[in-house]
Amino acid sequence: MEQRISIVTLGTADMARSCAFWEAMGLQRRSRKSPGMAFFQLGGIALGLYPFDKLAEDCHLPGGPPSGSVTLCYNARDEAEVDAVLAAAVAAGATLHVPAHKAFWGGYSGYFLDPDGHPWEIAFNPFFPLADDGSLQIPA
Amino acid sequence: MEQRISIVTLGTADMARSCAFWEAMGLQRRSRKSPGMAFFQLGGIALGLYPFDKLAEDCHLPGGPPSGSVTLCYNARDEAEVDAVLAAAVAAGATLHVPAHKAFWGGYSGYFLDPDGHPWEIAFNPFFPLADDGSLQIPA
Repeated sequence: MEQRISIVTLGTADMARSCAFWEAMGLQRRSRKSPGMAFFQLGGIALGLYPFDKLAEDCHLPGGPPSGSVTLCYNARDEAEVDAVLAAAVAAGATLHVPAHKAFWGGYSGYFLDPDGHPWEIAFNPFFPLADDGSLQIPA
Repeated sequence: MEQRISIVTLGTADMARSCAFWEAMGLQRRSRKSPGMAFFQLGGIALGLYPFDKLAEDCHLPGGPPSGSVTLCYNARDEAEVDAVLAAAVAAGATLHVPAHKAFWGGYSGYFLDPDGHPWEIAFNPFFPLADDGSLQIPA
């Protein structure tokens, strides 16, 4: 395999609510011709939204509400951006789940839960600098 | 927020086994100084591995085995690459969960479960071309 992930798909209980949330966060929905699934561009990958039951059917697994077995992280450029993104998420309808704090690993981080309960960490990691285009290259 | 995901972190029951799996898939572990967490570069983002219990503790959620509420998709360049990646995953220790087949949406796709049960779809989508660098730009 080449080294990539192409799409992260999140199950949702309410497509309209979840699309509205991500649009309020500034993401633009694309490929509106795709019936029943929503795609948002996130750098070089896509965020997908699909109903919980249909996603579970597609991958032949139980599905249902998310657990803490997968987390998604948005790395911010500084601590102030962590605070700003968490505040924007709450304003858009998310739940502040873990308030931003100095983390044991030397960064600054907090979590919000999106409207379906998926955990999103917003973190500033001084050891993992971001490129101008937002891409992350993990140090060797 | 800018439009990106930085890190997708998967909970694991066995760090050594999961690291060995992804290394057998050709990924290179980076940032080995990070204690207790593994990072692999995937295009402009990182794949993280972290013990189920520690990940659940970090995000203050129950954690445990994954459900079908989040899926990760690797888009292949053609149908033959779908077959090849699924075969490579099985050879590296994954379970073939949904054999590759013509999908209702016009593509060709199958799923493997990684050693911790996370569902990975391997798909060829003729409507979503990949750039030379593997990045995916969803059509408008």
